[in-house]
Amino acid sequence: MDEHTHLNIDENIRECIDDCHRCHDICLATVGHCLEMGGEHAEPDHIQLLLDCAEICQTSANFMLRTSDFHGQVCEVCAEVCERCAEDCERFEDDQVMQQCAEVCRNCARSCRDMAGLA
Amino acid sequence: MDEHTHLNIDENIRECIDDCHRCHDICLATVGHCLEMGGEHAEPDHIQLLLDCAEICQTSANFMLRTSDFHGQVCEVCAEVCERCAEDCERFEDDQVMQQCAEVCRNCARSCRDMAGLA
Amino acid sequence: MDEHTHLNIDENIRECIDDCHRCHDICLATVGHCLEMGGEHAEPDHIQLLLDCAEICQTSANFMLRTSDFHGQVCEVCAEVCERCAEDCERFEDDQVMQQCAEVCRNCARSCRDMAGLA
Amino acid sequence: MDEHTHLNIDENIRECIDDCHRCHDICLATVGHCLEMGGEHAEPDHIQLLLDCAEICQTSANFMLRTSDFHGQVCEVCAEVCERCAEDCERFEDDQVMQQCAEVCRNCARSCRDMAGLA
Repeated sequence: MDEHTHLNIDENIRECIDDCHRCHDICLATVGHCLEMGGEHAEPDHIQLLLDCAEICQTSANFMLRTSDFHGQVCEVCAEVCERCAEDCERFEDDQVMQQCAEVCRNCARSCRDMAGLA
Repeated sequence: MDEHTHLNIDENIRECIDDCHRCHDICLATVGHCLEMGGEHAEPDHIQLLLDCAEICQTSANFMLRTSDFHGQVCEVCAEVCERCAEDCERFEDDQVMQQCAEVCRNCARSCRDMAGLA
Repeated sequence: MDEHTHLNIDENIRECIDDCHRCHDICLATVGHCLEMGGEHAEPDHIQLLLDCAEICQTSANFMLRTSDFHGQVCEVCAEVCERCAEDCERFEDDQVMQQCAEVCRNCARSCRDMAGLA
Repeated sequence: MDEHTHLNIDENIRECIDDCHRCHDICLATVGHCLEMGGEHAEPDHIQLLLDCAEICQTSANFMLRTSDFHGQVCEVCAEVCERCAEDCERFEDDQVMQQCAEVCRNCARSCRDMAGLA
């Protein structure tokens, strides 16, 4: 069952929405991991950045689902936040959770940048 | 790539999160469809119910992603809103978009009710 | 300028919306304080509870603003989360920030419980 | 009771957060009004724009509450959405509800543009 198909949402937009959901989910779940780890993982700027990233991904997805005229501008900010979040997660070189979060953020950044370019 | 796996999020919770995302997405996209259709589709109570359903699904997903102690209670309310939204969409018997939205809502209601029972 | 007046939103609901905004704001800002403090302040369950409280307050306010049939049920869950969050913040007896957060949460819990009772 | 004071949130940011809440609230409540009115009030683009405006205001407020590095960029997009929403509401010249919504949006646009300039 693919609930997007019939709604005339363009295939590209649909993929970007899914990338945003994936990035939102992993960032929110990674907050839990980082708080458990403590130390450098739980530094204020790092936690807040994960929360920023989760929220702007949610907002971008919603703007695309409303086929808003402003979805490109929201996706542009989203791409920047995701990019920064990816860099911040990559610092934890020996932590697989952080590496995977970085990868998902990087992917969402790319997807949102493309979307911003198309809009 | 499955970004949930490593985060120690239980398989059941993961599926419920995905059901919530699907329901959230289709409800928000269906608002657009209903406004385009006008008439009975665009009645205030119907549109607001779709918006209620989209939002409570988002909130439920986020409570599960935080592994919150309260996720069961939020899922319980979510199940009720989804159920009502499904009924409200089913009324439009000749409209495939509405029937599919109803089906996704019904599925999410079941998933959230199970989750509330487990919590 | 009071932007609620003309919208036929009942005075009680209006006050509850404002209490939810206040509680949402202080919980989100208190996350920053707790992460800065570290130690017991930054324990995973405490931070996640503040995030739960901020989000359910936002959702409750939105359900009231849509005059949703389900606003009472969302307010009921909100009251419980706020109550628990208040207790969790009160433990920090010598920290004025935490005491004030507890007070705002307690006030919102009362307001949402009353709203749930009326609905 | 002013819950912001002790949290070291700058006075300007505090005012912008409150402007965002006011704009968010009136846009969400105005959706109800527009759906009740029907006709031109309930045109898809107009309703979706009110929903866009409500959501980006919420997101902006949250970025400011997290003292995010990205709050300026989110406020910049917010200012544009608010500005467009104000124009769209002003068209309804004989409708006091729409005029008041326009005024609140215009005020929030100004506040967010200033915030974006400072950031």
